[in-house]
Amino acid sequence: MKTWQITRFGIDALELVERPVPAPGPGEVLVRWRAQSLNYRDLIIVDGSYIPQLPLPFTPLSDGAGEITAVGAGVTAWKPGDRVIGHYIQSWLDGAPTPENTRLSLGAPLPGVLTEYSVLPEHGLVPLPAHLTFEEGATLPIAALTAWNALFIHGDVAPGSTVLLEGTGGVSLFALQLAHAAGLRTIIISSSDEKLARARTLGADETINYRTVPAWSRRVRKLTNGAGVDLVLDIGGPATFTEALRAVRLGGRIAVIGFLSGTALELDTIEFMRTLATMHGIRVGSRAMFRDLLRALERHRLKPVIDREFSLTEAPAAFRHLASGAHFGKVVIRTGE
Amino acid sequence: MKTWQITRFGIDALELVERPVPAPGPGEVLVRWRAQSLNYRDLIIVDGSYIPQLPLPFTPLSDGAGEITAVGAGVTAWKPGDRVIGHYIQSWLDGAPTPENTRLSLGAPLPGVLTEYSVLPEHGLVPLPAHLTFEEGATLPIAALTAWNALFIHGDVAPGSTVLLEGTGGVSLFALQLAHAAGLRTIIISSSDEKLARARTLGADETINYRTVPAWSRRVRKLTNGAGVDLVLDIGGPATFTEALRAVRLGGRIAVIGFLSGTALELDTIEFMRTLATMHGIRVGSRAMFRDLLRALERHRLKPVIDREFSLTEAPAAFRHLASGAHFGKVVIRTGE
Amino acid sequence: MKTWQITRFGIDALELVERPVPAPGPGEVLVRWRAQSLNYRDLIIVDGSYIPQLPLPFTPLSDGAGEITAVGAGVTAWKPGDRVIGHYIQSWLDGAPTPENTRLSLGAPLPGVLTEYSVLPEHGLVPLPAHLTFEEGATLPIAALTAWNALFIHGDVAPGSTVLLEGTGGVSLFALQLAHAAGLRTIIISSSDEKLARARTLGADETINYRTVPAWSRRVRKLTNGAGVDLVLDIGGPATFTEALRAVRLGGRIAVIGFLSGTALELDTIEFMRTLATMHGIRVGSRAMFRDLLRALERHRLKPVIDREFSLTEAPAAFRHLASGAHFGKVVIRTGE
Amino acid sequence: MKTWQITRFGIDALELVERPVPAPGPGEVLVRWRAQSLNYRDLIIVDGSYIPQLPLPFTPLSDGAGEITAVGAGVTAWKPGDRVIGHYIQSWLDGAPTPENTRLSLGAPLPGVLTEYSVLPEHGLVPLPAHLTFEEGATLPIAALTAWNALFIHGDVAPGSTVLLEGTGGVSLFALQLAHAAGLRTIIISSSDEKLARARTLGADETINYRTVPAWSRRVRKLTNGAGVDLVLDIGGPATFTEALRAVRLGGRIAVIGFLSGTALELDTIEFMRTLATMHGIRVGSRAMFRDLLRALERHRLKPVIDREFSLTEAPAAFRHLASGAHFGKVVIRTGE
Repeated sequence: MKTWQITRFGIDALELVERPVPAPGPGEVLVRWRAQSLNYRDLIIVDGSYIPQLPLPFTPLSDGAGEITAVGAGVTAWKPGDRVIGHYIQSWLDGAPTPENTRLSLGAPLPGVLTEYSVLPEHGLVPLPAHLTFEEGATLPIAALTAWNALFIHGDVAPGSTVLLEGTGGVSLFALQLAHAAGLRTIIISSSDEKLARARTLGADETINYRTVPAWSRRVRKLTNGAGVDLVLDIGGPATFTEALRAVRLGGRIAVIGFLSGTALELDTIEFMRTLATMHGIRVGSRAMFRDLLRALERHRLKPVIDREFSLTEAPAAFRHLASGAHFGKVVIRTGE
Repeated sequence: MKTWQITRFGIDALELVERPVPAPGPGEVLVRWRAQSLNYRDLIIVDGSYIPQLPLPFTPLSDGAGEITAVGAGVTAWKPGDRVIGHYIQSWLDGAPTPENTRLSLGAPLPGVLTEYSVLPEHGLVPLPAHLTFEEGATLPIAALTAWNALFIHGDVAPGSTVLLEGTGGVSLFALQLAHAAGLRTIIISSSDEKLARARTLGADETINYRTVPAWSRRVRKLTNGAGVDLVLDIGGPATFTEALRAVRLGGRIAVIGFLSGTALELDTIEFMRTLATMHGIRVGSRAMFRDLLRALERHRLKPVIDREFSLTEAPAAFRHLASGAHFGKVVIRTGE
Repeated sequence: MKTWQITRFGIDALELVERPVPAPGPGEVLVRWRAQSLNYRDLIIVDGSYIPQLPLPFTPLSDGAGEITAVGAGVTAWKPGDRVIGHYIQSWLDGAPTPENTRLSLGAPLPGVLTEYSVLPEHGLVPLPAHLTFEEGATLPIAALTAWNALFIHGDVAPGSTVLLEGTGGVSLFALQLAHAAGLRTIIISSSDEKLARARTLGADETINYRTVPAWSRRVRKLTNGAGVDLVLDIGGPATFTEALRAVRLGGRIAVIGFLSGTALELDTIEFMRTLATMHGIRVGSRAMFRDLLRALERHRLKPVIDREFSLTEAPAAFRHLASGAHFGKVVIRTGE
Repeated sequence: MKTWQITRFGIDALELVERPVPAPGPGEVLVRWRAQSLNYRDLIIVDGSYIPQLPLPFTPLSDGAGEITAVGAGVTAWKPGDRVIGHYIQSWLDGAPTPENTRLSLGAPLPGVLTEYSVLPEHGLVPLPAHLTFEEGATLPIAALTAWNALFIHGDVAPGSTVLLEGTGGVSLFALQLAHAAGLRTIIISSSDEKLARARTLGADETINYRTVPAWSRRVRKLTNGAGVDLVLDIGGPATFTEALRAVRLGGRIAVIGFLSGTALELDTIEFMRTLATMHGIRVGSRAMFRDLLRALERHRLKPVIDREFSLTEAPAAFRHLASGAHFGKVVIRTGE
């Protein structure tokens, strides 16, 4: 089978190699991937900045959808032909996160899915909803589940609440669609008027170009009668956090999801205490959350926004496209033909 | 001013009398009611079955909307001309219910609003949203707030959750509209196919005629792939509770709201423990909840379903219409002309 | 190995048979039980009233502690010699209860632990705290975890809250000790002044003999300045529920745990709604909760209350002793010598 | 009556002036203060660093206890002679904090209580528990309520949870006593071995001198078997936050309470997301929380730790003593004789 791997860090180092198809042991299944999707995390894993001590060679990527082609002894959950999606944090099935259950994630430390076949434990998958293609299903494991967790597990929202979203990457667009389906009001910021216009077609109620309105928290305040938003999904990190904190209402919430612009945050304690905000770190989610997410997607026939699709052999180009920041929605790889 | 009162129990005993317009004291406002709405509670107050020891004469009704016509000393929240809705449990402003804060409700023990003018404390009102008429605003205080409380305070729902609603009275229809706006899946039961058809136009996903399908919990199970619903708003009491308990999913919730069919419930403990359900009694809600409800109504431009409007002088006919059970939505009285 | 089983229902039908010691498969461990404890559930399983269709022959009992004597392939959590306690609902590891994760419990439908050895999956056990003997550890799986779940998962209590406990069986005494350790105020009822005196030595703040004070809810109200208690752990079912509902404060909670006196509950809907209480069914708990319970027991060096110990060959006498209702705390079987 | 005020910023600027005793209006009461206590907040208000635009002259201090000496028209909650404590955020009675209900606090923006008499609305007070003196009651409004809020409203703790406390000021010592009463395990850090020894007599389970162990998070990890603590009450701000974040368990909580060492926090986003911690800003609490706190204090007969008492005329010395940082517990002023 074809497998991408790196033996040193860098997108240029990605090489397509041939490996034998593995066989599932007891309690395991063999999945033939039909599509994968990329996340920002994959970029910093491949370039070595996220986990410098990552053992090489390594096959990257966390998100994949495909079909079961073989099952090991004792497997009852699946049979060959079942359409499935990989669950990112394989060991986190239910309940609150713990050091034990958050240990094993696909695409580091576990081998990634940028390959034709993987063997996974039977509990490491969820069913692909009937209304979704493999390509669409492959976009969900990290970005959609992160959005779900931030909105509905930690978000404390109800119809009429206002949510602030940053940028038009995978997490923000899933959050936009899910928030819209939940009757929440959405405000989204981006540096591109064109992207903002597309966000409106997905249900965004208000849009702000943060390039032309750098002090965008004031605009947000105005749009919320001075109150501020109930929830921010902060993707930007240092570049956005200060404005995010100014945009959130007293007693509101900030989901800390990303660090696109760096990792060292300046937090003004007095301002933080004045907002009485709650900040949560969000790390994707459990399989139980994933099942609830799928139920919501099915209920609303929601379709992920795919920016562009690449073939398996074009994987390096897919990485470069994501790195360019030009995308609107998810970057996908088609593996089957 | 014209005021309806009873000096003995019974709809026949309602009499229209003339009273002087009261004057607001410090911290109080004078409201000129423009519309009122009826609840099942008003029926059993007027017929004496709910509070046999109610001191007479008594002016009934809990729900009203109108405008401020005068303010007492020290009032800062309102000025003459402001459009307002009365808050049912006047003393419950925020937080959890307590014996102290749930004591004072309009329409017993406090005098009701079936009159042209009332004096209320300034905190006993909320603003009428701009997109609603007085008639529409008058439908909200009990029925809409009860639905909000059951769904979003006690309901533990997220997009994709399924909610079961009973009948097409005020609470159930508000719950239907709010649940639909929140991306929840709704199943509604009624004895009338015609009412069920109208419920579909309001967003009901599934409908069941409980007259033709008496064991409707089985139908509900089928519609939820055997799982059962996440939440039931039980209005019926004894007549519906056993089926409701069979319709709820393991770990689901039952909001106990009404007792249309009586008050003595037979609860099978083993069945209750098998479902691991949570049962809550719901008593309308606080003013803080009312404000959140209004924000959601504004966000979605939701319009209450008014079954029929009567003039102030036709009040007894309005009571009889509600008692007939023929209504679909709220029964309203127009007070101003 | 020695194993108790029934081939027909009834304590008289318990027979001690010889069976080969089983061997652990991949992911499994062999436990040599050193002690077991009985629960009310075991009585109604053995007499056939709880699960009439139980396949026979059947080995009863859910609670056991012992040591690992062998581990199967791939087991990393345990090694021979480790002191362990069985986890009652083997499949419920974490998160909320679901139909899937609450399916497999020891002592029905899974074979019970009234035997010298059992094979269990490696996740089906928790470590026995160092300060506890096997006999003490064997009392925990159902009774202590039920008390923990009712108090700290569903109970919504804080220091100064008042908890009402019924009787002096395992759940109530564990709840008494845990509540006392958590700074809660406890009121316990019993039909025996002698048992109540012993409850005081375990930390009970107030005691009521429900035989001499049948309308004990009034006494509870007096002891709480008229407010009522924050939480009731209702063990009695029909015989106690009505008083329990009268004893709980407005907005308080009732954990529905048992049905010692029958299963058909009369619930007055109006009274239920007046209290605005929340009723939860409690079914023991997850392994994650069990670990938190153990941490609390270790922190406070809490020792379970053992009423009486029997040897393995005296098992039927242990059942009869529990059935007599004379016990104060847990009835234990010593299996090892 | 005697009143302290500042007409310019600085402890030196405090001057004792004579003012007429005010009279309560409708719904108001006159309180004769018998004791007050100081908080760090008072220091930075008097020195002008917290609210530079504070209108002068201004009477500082937020915490006081005393007795009702007169009541205005319509007051039903109190009568002359009642022993009371002032509620710090006068307008926050119940529910979640909002811009409206957190506006009016004693000691800025409202006039403070460093005076012999104040007029307050009748809802701006709570009853002084019988087991407490005026001096003890005066220590509660800010420090004890902040500790309660952080532990039991936002803390998500259960018996056996571990709480980390910083220093031996009012909040930390109240948290120590309350956590101990709740069966929590406590770890406290201080720069003084003598203070740590005294903390042990109040129930501290573990103590760390952060001067001799600057990287104290490692010690905390060791004391918790590598897991980290469940909750940190961070008082220190920048000087302690980084270690606090390293000391908290995965999924744990950090209550952000103070900024003794400055206001600009460096937050490493990746480290924050690795802990999946939740950070809350805590601003004292509502009157409903205050009542729950009082109930717990009464239940456990808890006595506040008073460091030192000053007479009313010695107020500037009390400020200087607090500023020195030498205190262990609360600094109190006795007003009556």
